[in-house]
Parts: sequence; C-alpha cells; structure tokens
Amino acid sequence: MLSCSNQYVFFFSLCRKYTAISSHNQRQSGSASSPAAAPQRLPFSRVTVEDLTFFRKTLPGRAITDPDLVQSSNEDWLKSVRGSSEVLLRPQTTQEVSQILSYCQSRNLAVNPQGGNTGLVGGSVPVYDEIILSTSLMNNILSFDKISGILTCQAGCVLENLSLYLEERDYIMPLDLGAKGSCQIGGNVATNAGGLRLLRYGSLRGTVLGLEVVLADGQVLDCLSTLRKDNTGYDLKQLFIGSEGTLGVITAVSILCPRKPKSVNVVFLGCETFDQLLKSFQLCKGMLGEILSAFEFLDSECMRLLNTHLKLANPISDCPFYIVIETSGSDSDHDSQKLHNFLEEAMTSLLVTDGTVATEESKIKTLWSMRERVTEALTHDGFTYKYDISLPVERIYQLVTDMRQHLGERARSVVGYGHVGDGNLHLNITSSAKDPALLASIEPFIYEWTAKFQGSISAEHGLGLKKRNYIYYSKSRPTVAVMGKMKTLLDPKGILNPYKTLPDDLK
Amino acid sequence: MLSCSNQYVFFFSLCRKYTAISSHNQRQSGSASSPAAAPQRLPFSRVTVEDLTFFRKTLPGRAITDPDLVQSSNEDWLKSVRGSSEVLLRPQTTQEVSQILSYCQSRNLAVNPQGGNTGLVGGSVPVYDEIILSTSLMNNILSFDKISGILTCQAGCVLENLSLYLEERDYIMPLDLGAKGSCQIGGNVATNAGGLRLLRYGSLRGTVLGLEVVLADGQVLDCLSTLRKDNTGYDLKQLFIGSEGTLGVITAVSILCPRKPKSVNVVFLGCETFDQLLKSFQLCKGMLGEILSAFEFLDSECMRLLNTHLKLANPISDCPFYIVIETSGSDSDHDSQKLHNFLEEAMTSLLVTDGTVATEESKIKTLWSMRERVTEALTHDGFTYKYDISLPVERIYQLVTDMRQHLGERARSVVGYGHVGDGNLHLNITSSAKDPALLASIEPFIYEWTAKFQGSISAEHGLGLKKRNYIYYSKSRPTVAVMGKMKTLLDPKGILNPYKTLPDDLK
Repeated sequence: MLSCSNQYVFFFSLCRKYTAISSHNQRQSGSASSPAAAPQRLPFSRVTVEDLTFFRKTLPGRAITDPDLVQSSNEDWLKSVRGSSEVLLRPQTTQEVSQILSYCQSRNLAVNPQGGNTGLVGGSVPVYDEIILSTSLMNNILSFDKISGILTCQAGCVLENLSLYLEERDYIMPLDLGAKGSCQIGGNVATNAGGLRLLRYGSLRGTVLGLEVVLADGQVLDCLSTLRKDNTGYDLKQLFIGSEGTLGVITAVSILCPRKPKSVNVVFLGCETFDQLLKSFQLCKGMLGEILSAFEFLDSECMRLLNTHLKLANPISDCPFYIVIETSGSDSDHDSQKLHNFLEEAMTSLLVTDGTVATEESKIKTLWSMRERVTEALTHDGFTYKYDISLPVERIYQLVTDMRQHLGERARSVVGYGHVGDGNLHLNITSSAKDPALLASIEPFIYEWTAKFQGSISAEHGLGLKKRNYIYYSKSRPTVAVMGKMKTLLDPKGILNPYKTLPDDLK
Repeated sequence: MLSCSNQYVFFFSLCRKYTAISSHNQRQSGSASSPAAAPQRLPFSRVTVEDLTFFRKTLPGRAITDPDLVQSSNEDWLKSVRGSSEVLLRPQTTQEVSQILSYCQSRNLAVNPQGGNTGLVGGSVPVYDEIILSTSLMNNILSFDKISGILTCQAGCVLENLSLYLEERDYIMPLDLGAKGSCQIGGNVATNAGGLRLLRYGSLRGTVLGLEVVLADGQVLDCLSTLRKDNTGYDLKQLFIGSEGTLGVITAVSILCPRKPKSVNVVFLGCETFDQLLKSFQLCKGMLGEILSAFEFLDSECMRLLNTHLKLANPISDCPFYIVIETSGSDSDHDSQKLHNFLEEAMTSLLVTDGTVATEESKIKTLWSMRERVTEALTHDGFTYKYDISLPVERIYQLVTDMRQHLGERARSVVGYGHVGDGNLHLNITSSAKDPALLASIEPFIYEWTAKFQGSISAEHGLGLKKRNYIYYSKSRPTVAVMGKMKTLLDPKGILNPYKTLPDDLK
C-alpha cells in the first residue's frame, strides 16, 4: 500500500468565510462543529501499487503521481481548501473514463472529478485522498453546425477557447464567466454555471442540448443529443447539470450557441433609491426589450472601495446606487436609438439622476471595470465574508440594509452588488481581520433571512464541500431526501465526489 | 366491488396511424402485436364502494361517477384512444391531491393524471380503469411579480387564461400552442410542450423556475422556487418536466414570462430549393437577430392541398418551398427596417424568389393561416399518417424526399412542413383510406431513417401510450434502463399513469 496520509488541510484565504481546520485530529476532537467543517473520511479503499499499475497501463504517461504535479490539483484556486490525493489521472477519451470508473467502483476507490478547478465552494478538489480525475486532456471540439449553431465538444474544452472558436464562425457561447480562461465546459455544466449572459440567453438548463456522462460503474450514458426538441422519455441529462460531479462524470457536451451580436453598448447610471433602480429595470425591460443583455448594480459603498483602494474615478456624480446596462443587438443605429429613448425617459421621469454611455470598446471596458473590479477592491479592504444569494428581485437590497443595521459598528464595510436581472446579490462584509464573533453575527442570520424570503443560499456557486450542510435553508427535507435517493441509485457506493453537495446527515 | 369492465377500446380517428383493437380479448389473442398496441392490464386493485366513500368524503361533490360525466375524460380529443375509468376526481388543492395519492398507493389503485386532455399520443386518458385525477379545478393564479415577470399558479390554469392575464400586465407566456384554449399549464409542463415561441424564448427546461409535485405516496415535493438562479442541490423539478405524469402529479408551476412585444411582423417568402431555404434561415438569424420569433416552412405539396381543399390562394407566385418568418420587437420602425434590409439581401442574393410582408393584424393572420391550416387541409385529403420528427436542421427535408421516393405511387400525398428554427419536421402521408400495407411501408422505415441521423421520433408530442415502445429508436438501452430505475424509485408500485412513456419491456 502506498503511504497515504489521513491528514487533510483546510486553510484560509483572505476572502473566504471558512472555518480553519489544521488537521483531521483537530476536527475529530470536536473543535470544528461548524456545518462547513469537513466530515470524517469514509471507508473507501486506499490506492495500492496494483491500482497504480492498472492506471498506468490504462493511461500510459497520464497517471500522475509526482507530488509536485499532483499538488496544484489538490488545492482550489482560492487556496482555501486542500486535499491529500496522491494520484492524478488524465484520460483523453470517454472509454478511458469508463475504464477508470469501472475499476474504481470495483475497488471502492473514491474519485474527485475535476475540470478547470475554478470553483468557489470546495467542490473541485479532494477532501482526503480521492483520486483526481481531470478532464483537461479531453479538449476536442467534436462538431459545429453553422446553420443551427449547435456545438458538440469534449468536457475539458476551456470556455475561452470555445468562445474564440465560435467567434471566428460568427457565434458566441451562451455563457460567459470571469474564470473563462481556465474553466472547462464540463465543469460549467456540472456546476450549472450562471455568469454574465444568463439574463439574455437563459440558463444551461435550456441551452445544453445533450450530455455524454459516465456513471460510477463505468457505464456510458449517451444523452448527447444535438436536437432542440426531443420528448422521448425522461430528460436524464438534466440530472447531471448542477450535480457537481456527484452523480456521474460529464465527458461531452452539446450546446446551442447564439449568433455574435453586431453592436454592443454599455451605460453607467446613478439612482437615488433602490426602488428607482428597480423601476429603471422595469422601464429598461420594456424599452430595450430584446437588446438588453445585462442589468447589473453596485452601491455607493462599492464605489467608495473602488475609489479608495483602486483609485478608480466615478465616471458620473456621486449617487447611492449605480447601474451598468449592456445592450447587444444586430443593428448599431437601432440599438443607439433605443438606448437614447430609454435614457431620455429614465431622466425625464427622474428614475436616474446621472449617466454616461459607451460605444467604443475601451470605454466599454472602463465602465464594466466599475462593476467587475469590486471583488478586487474588497480584497484590499480587509478580511472579506462573501455571500452569493438569490432573492425575489424586490428584496435583494433589503438584505444589505438589514445586514448593515444588524452588524452596526462590528463590520468595516457591508457592500452589495450583483445581477439585478437575475435577482442575484453578492453581499460582502469586511473586517480588519478574521473575526469569529463577526461571523457568528452574520451566520445563520443571513441564511435565515434568505430562507424567510424563499431565496437561495447559493445562486450560482453550488454547495460543494463548504455549503453542503446549509442546503436545508433553501430546500425542504423531503426534497433533500429524494436527492439522497438519486445519489444512491446512480452511485450506490458513493465513490463520486464524496463529501460534496449533499448534507452529512444523508450519509 | 363496483362492476368494472376489463374491456378497453381503441378506435381510429381519421388522422391517426394507430392499430385498431376492439377488445382486450382480441389483443390477448395475438392479433395486435404492433409496438403501439396496449399492454395487458396490470394487477392494480379495482375501485370498491369503500374507496368511493373515501373519495366522496375527501372531495365533497367532486368525486364523479356519473358515466356521462366521466366519459369525456376517458377519451382523447382525437377520439383515437378510450379508457374505461368509472371515477373522475377533481381536487382543488395540493393537500387533496396528496390525500388521494396516498390513499391510492396504499390501496394499489392506478391513477391517470389529466390536464386539458389535448395530448396527441394517448398519454392523457386511462387505458383501462385507472382513476382519472383531473387538475381542472386547480386553476388559481397564486402570484405574479411585475418586476421579474415571474408567474406562479396552480397546475390547472388554462394556458389562454394565463396569456390573457399576463397581456393585461404587459407580459406574455413563453409558450403558445394551438390547443391553448383547453390545455393546462400543468399538462404543458408534464409533456414539455414546445409550440410556436420556442425559437425565441427557449424550452420549458429554462423558463419553468419551480414546480410543486405530489409523489405517488402522497408526499408533496416543494420545488416551487421563483428564482432565476438556485444551485442548492439537484434540480429535481427537471425530472417531472416531460415525464407525462408518470413520476408525480404537478400541482403548481412558477414560470418566467417575457415582456409583450410592441411590434409584430410576418413575411411569406418563396424559395427554389431547400438549400436556399436553409441559407435564408442563416441570413435571417444574422440580420434579424434578436427580433426573430418564428421561422416556419411548408412545401409546394402543402400549398396544393391548401389551394385544393380550403381554396386558400397562394399569396405569392408558385415555388417549391415557402417560408413564414415572424418578428417580435420593441420598436416597429426598427423592426421594419431590419426586415427590409433582410429581404433586400435575400432577394439580391437570389435566396428567395418572391415574398410579401404583413404588419396589419388581419394580413398577419392570413399569412399565418397558410402555415397553420395545413393540418386541416390534410384531413380533407384522405386518411393521414402523421409524424413529428426532430432532426439536424439540414436533414429535415431529406426525409420527405426519401419518403416520397420510398413510397412512390402507394401514397396519395407526402407533405412536409414545420419549425425550421427548431429542426422539427411534421411529415404527413395521406391515402384514400386506412391502408395497413402503406403503414408497413412507412414504419419502421421512418423510425430507422430518423435514428440513422440521430433524430428524435417525438420532437414535442411525447411518447404517451402510442409511442412508448418506439423509444429505442431515439434513446439507448442503458439510458432507458436508468429511466426505468427512476420510475421505480419515485413510484415503486407503478400507480402513476401506467402503460405510458416507458416501453413494455421495462415492466
């Protein structure tokens, strides 16, 4: 048997709310009773020399055991969670994935499927010594239909590479993320990634037309349809979208891609109240209609941090709230005119008090950076507690106000920004340093508040390891129990991405 | 015990391809070996006087046994399939549905959930004596959020009523069907209905945000989220979308509704070849972009039937192919100009040879009728064999051509029309009368052809009773086996809509 440490290490990054645990023993001694703490290692087998022989034979030169090479796959990009896997497997084909899983199930070896490892909830790295199954070498585009815009590719294709491929063909991907340079389409689908284009092109539930998935027992489930309509039996692929690699390993994806817009504009506006901001959103939906592609917001606290820490100048006069609107259309004259009409109406009816429009790419980037660089500004403000909440859109800022009042002087900054169009709030709270007392004031207050208004405690990031035990704030017990039954049905030994997504009390 | 006939009756409507079976005995004698034939009655209990007492107590005045009243719910609207149920239950609340199912499961009584009974594949009526559970009285709108456009309602709301409700509030439903005056939103979701707006607003997989479902054991599964983003665990509601009432009874739906367009235009065009039609589609997607809301086609054979049987005059000169394009936008001047530019380009590049544009409602209706009345024209042409096929868009007309060649003089007419934008072909074949030899030439030829090009043998109609055994033409055996496991997991006694969706060999 290989030497295989039972130890795992959880450690803080500056911007995570996570409970630090330095060793397995510490957790076992009861010091880490937080629902976010890692569970005990389950009784999976440990990797033996015979296992390695099999992996090396199945994946010549692609069964990695060099600790230096395995290390980066053990750790998430926030450097907040770290596993202790000693084996990284890099299959190139579905058949290889099938052979690996079939073998691992028969040997009761746990497997951690990994795409670009850009997740935020500790779902993409091992917790203990799970074998890391990376899709990085499964990066072939299989087909693209220029008439229908349907792309089929292996799961390991990097999102940005797919975007570049499509742009040359006058199409775009229906999703866009900050992590696009690293994240892979298989991981995007496995986590049901949201991102910037959801308002316009909808969720992956609608745009993903087909999946090829390898089940825990190695069986290949071919749901790789490239049809917009198919009502022959249950739509099994939906099970795997957003299941974070716990029900099967996605090996290929077909996805419906929209045409590349010919004209893009960005507007930056200021509002006096959040109510006016919501009214502007309604007006915008009516007047910009089909060309609206983003409606984002930030509050004056975000602007203060941008000014203070990044020296970014407010492009308009100071206001309590700011809006970033993006339009994407097929005719620049029409788009400009629609924007002009909307702005005139918004100004005349006093919904917005100031604003600026960008049509050139450099100015578009400058305006977008006011929204996109808030995260970066926060890291300069201190230790950050980050939350990703979905709420009925009329409630999203009330949570920020209530939190500010609730925390009073205990927090350095309480800031809100996010996707108004999707009802998705990013609420961030900073303090001078890590502050368990502050955290205790935030949680479970924030989860209870969210649950009270039927919100989601994870809008787009998933549950992974870190939030698995908070699921009951957004889902009923009978619902979670059915999830557990699905897991048992598809992965009876529980070898796929253990300790993730489902709460410990189901195990 | 109530007298309860073991007999069921299958009978023909003029336009169905179904194998006629006049009695249960006949099927048992082996005369009905077609995959479309009904299976043997499963050993469910029969309704007793005690059962009726329970139903009458639970649903005062809404447990119907008057044969005249039950009769219309036993028969599908095509009059092609008829069951012999003697009990029609009309709950008003989720709690009542829960009580009924809990009772039925404990008594091993089979249940046929029924919405507007507008299905085309025999999925909405009992096969034998299943209790009919109608959602017709569950017709309350529960909430509508004017900012987000999210509607929540009970499952029995009629689609047209929802549309009228929303139009008064400047919104529309994201789906529109010919059956909208009768079909219910619960049934739409249970069958994953497609319809006319899919090209623009996407499938119900993306627009349905939440469902409330009662499982076979009476348990209420609350997935009635009204959030655009929610990644907390598996998205169980997807299981019930398109499962045709076999996994649970949908009792409430929340759905994301688009704004009502301010401007609608319709164009009717003629093409010389299907290849030019596809090139026109590509050009159209690029130049009309975000305002394109429908791209439909019919062939010259359809036009001949419209002329001959309905005396509808061709609004343009005779061509082999015709296109109906609809635009929906927020600015009529912009939409007109985009259309004008597209038409100029399409004419100049000789993609289309003739065309006419409608902006007034009456002319819009006239042009749409050329597409919408093909079905009616077919019924006058003779006995019609109807197929609803999804294919890669570049293949859809090849099937018509191949079928025409394959059948030669045996068919009276072989016509193709449908949704180019969705890759969805309606292929219809007529003969002077029902013709088993012709049917034997069509099937399995059409299914094999469809399977060869990875198409779907049911694009939007589902499988129901009639097509359940054809599932393997579009789904692999391992995939169907997993579907069977899902059914067993959620409905272990198989009481929900038995004999539907899944093939007989799974039972």
